[in-house]
Amino acid sequence: MRTQVVIIGGGPSGLLLSQLLHRKGIDTVVLERKTRDYVLGRIRAGILEVGFVDLMREAGVGARLDRESHIHDGTVIAYEDQEFRIDFKEMTGSHVVVYGQTEVTRDLYDAREAMDGKVVFNAEGVTIHEADGDAPYVTYEKDGSTHRIDCEFIAGCDGFHGVSRQTIPLDVRREYEKLYPFGWLGVLSETPPVHDELIYSGSERGFALCSMRNENLSRYYVQCSLSDTPEDWSDDAFWTELKRRIPSKYAEALVTGASIEKSIAPLRSFVTEPMRWGRLFLCGDAAHIVPPTGAKGLNTAASDVHYLYNGLVQHYHDGDSHGIDTYSEKALARIWKAERFSWTTTNLLHRFPDQSEFDLKMQLADVNFLRDNVNAQKVFAENYIGLPY
Amino acid sequence: MRTQVVIIGGGPSGLLLSQLLHRKGIDTVVLERKTRDYVLGRIRAGILEVGFVDLMREAGVGARLDRESHIHDGTVIAYEDQEFRIDFKEMTGSHVVVYGQTEVTRDLYDAREAMDGKVVFNAEGVTIHEADGDAPYVTYEKDGSTHRIDCEFIAGCDGFHGVSRQTIPLDVRREYEKLYPFGWLGVLSETPPVHDELIYSGSERGFALCSMRNENLSRYYVQCSLSDTPEDWSDDAFWTELKRRIPSKYAEALVTGASIEKSIAPLRSFVTEPMRWGRLFLCGDAAHIVPPTGAKGLNTAASDVHYLYNGLVQHYHDGDSHGIDTYSEKALARIWKAERFSWTTTNLLHRFPDQSEFDLKMQLADVNFLRDNVNAQKVFAENYIGLPY
Repeated sequence: MRTQVVIIGGGPSGLLLSQLLHRKGIDTVVLERKTRDYVLGRIRAGILEVGFVDLMREAGVGARLDRESHIHDGTVIAYEDQEFRIDFKEMTGSHVVVYGQTEVTRDLYDAREAMDGKVVFNAEGVTIHEADGDAPYVTYEKDGSTHRIDCEFIAGCDGFHGVSRQTIPLDVRREYEKLYPFGWLGVLSETPPVHDELIYSGSERGFALCSMRNENLSRYYVQCSLSDTPEDWSDDAFWTELKRRIPSKYAEALVTGASIEKSIAPLRSFVTEPMRWGRLFLCGDAAHIVPPTGAKGLNTAASDVHYLYNGLVQHYHDGDSHGIDTYSEKALARIWKAERFSWTTTNLLHRFPDQSEFDLKMQLADVNFLRDNVNAQKVFAENYIGLPY
Repeated sequence: MRTQVVIIGGGPSGLLLSQLLHRKGIDTVVLERKTRDYVLGRIRAGILEVGFVDLMREAGVGARLDRESHIHDGTVIAYEDQEFRIDFKEMTGSHVVVYGQTEVTRDLYDAREAMDGKVVFNAEGVTIHEADGDAPYVTYEKDGSTHRIDCEFIAGCDGFHGVSRQTIPLDVRREYEKLYPFGWLGVLSETPPVHDELIYSGSERGFALCSMRNENLSRYYVQCSLSDTPEDWSDDAFWTELKRRIPSKYAEALVTGASIEKSIAPLRSFVTEPMRWGRLFLCGDAAHIVPPTGAKGLNTAASDVHYLYNGLVQHYHDGDSHGIDTYSEKALARIWKAERFSWTTTNLLHRFPDQSEFDLKMQLADVNFLRDNVNAQKVFAENYIGLPY
């Protein structure tokens, strides 16, 4: 088999890239290790930057998103029993959009099917060959036999544990990592959200986040120990802990219910450099991870897709390789800013085991400064809605 | 002897408070452990907020300051061989004023003498009595005998190592402290400053600061080990190290010369709460220390003097104790903001022994964000010129 671009990974970034390129007449094959249902079963982010939404529209996949998503013009920051609001619209003129990653992925699969896009599921043992040469190819196992796809470029959209990044030799690759000494315990429940905007809450018992997918689907998180497992947390224990970490007016209003999903994710900051090696380009989690506090995971993947898509179109349509040659540099410049925001927002509201009394006072001073200073709120809002591509 | 307010410490805050109160008809005695020449020999800060300058004018001590000081409308931030400028005037409409602390103190001593202000030098063994009662008094030793001053209030302006804070019982006092794992080696030289604004410079060899007092008096600093002594650093070694830490265009232009003062100061963040105990009020370094990176040491002392002066005038002139009753709360609210700024600015540009590769990337991302984001520059400038009293 031959195609122009092999895309490894059938999550939202791989699918979005495939869909965008297809509409520009560039042929792709998407290789996904799991099944469609498995991919759709992953509960992930739900906050989209406007830049992402624009890219979905450009990909022709914006209709349901525009119809069913919710615009958020601000967010609540709480600390102990205090709270204040950061008004994105007032501070930046823009907003974010609430629409679950699951729905994004579903829309993209539907669009790919409607266009007869080539998506191979259950592609195991994916291996990248000759990415640093002029004739790269990818092999994989499926149904007991080995398949080979010759191509011109490879997009590695296969996440943190995928093969793409590992293919780049260690003497080329430089990795930067921070592991946080806690995780997030997340619960999805078919209950109305406690508030119509997100609540980011610091407390002496640790961080909590009140989020949502729609009017009757809520997503809540509490900072937890890395040694905890979801089985350690009954629904009751979760709701009790959540209520202790958010301002009392929200705790009193909270509607609880049976969890329909419960999971723990460790928090990590990670970046690999460069994001291009020969004809292989890394996108999204394959190249970088942010702690979820700034809602940047899916959105950073989208900015990579934006740069790579435009670079490939420039290459195929104009014979100009400038876009792909500067891909790594441009993508990384934006990634590091998102890493910075995710790191500062995590530091702002979580409890760390080694925090001194002085450190706690500095954290409180940081929150109070954000509460009181309009330019600090502008900086937060600009980052949250997404820095320009 | 009897007075209304005993002021312990004859540094700039004690003298300024004494001068301000005198002009409102409130009687004070200043007790200084050392001699006038000793106090004037201490080389300290040189960047004054406009709020401080206004207070000096209100104290009738602004003439020479207004004549001889220099207005700085911005500062240079450098990182490796890059640099950018933060324009205070454009970002805030205001500026800072360069005028050495030594000159501030000299002007205040001259003013105190001209008004026959009572300043007792060589006052040893100062002890505060009954500060939590209605009839406090202070004793001290001088010329072989013990003296006693009865008073209504005591202002503790005697610095970090002074007796005032120590007088507050440990069960009332709460202290917050961070010691940084480095110091600043400072050199004063009679050379023209390398640039007409300050240069705050981060580098892989550590932080450096190019500062000045006037056209022919420069003050330079390099981050150094806490185990270093000034004797470890020849003038040559200092200049060589400084040049390595600032952008090459400045290193090439730097005029070096014999040092006329060389000293090492450890960096510390410290706050004690509350700042009032009965009739004793702490001001300046007696209550809080900031690392010098944000140029806030003298300026935070001035804001304390502002609040205490206004509180005492309100008490004596209007019989209203609101100002002194809220002194600690108001002073601390502003102090914590200055602590925050000093801490973030220190973190922005110093090298820390435990910094990981990720941490260094985050530091670079912080500097780049400040370079690229106008609202982040506004936040920096607002803090640097001084938040409102």
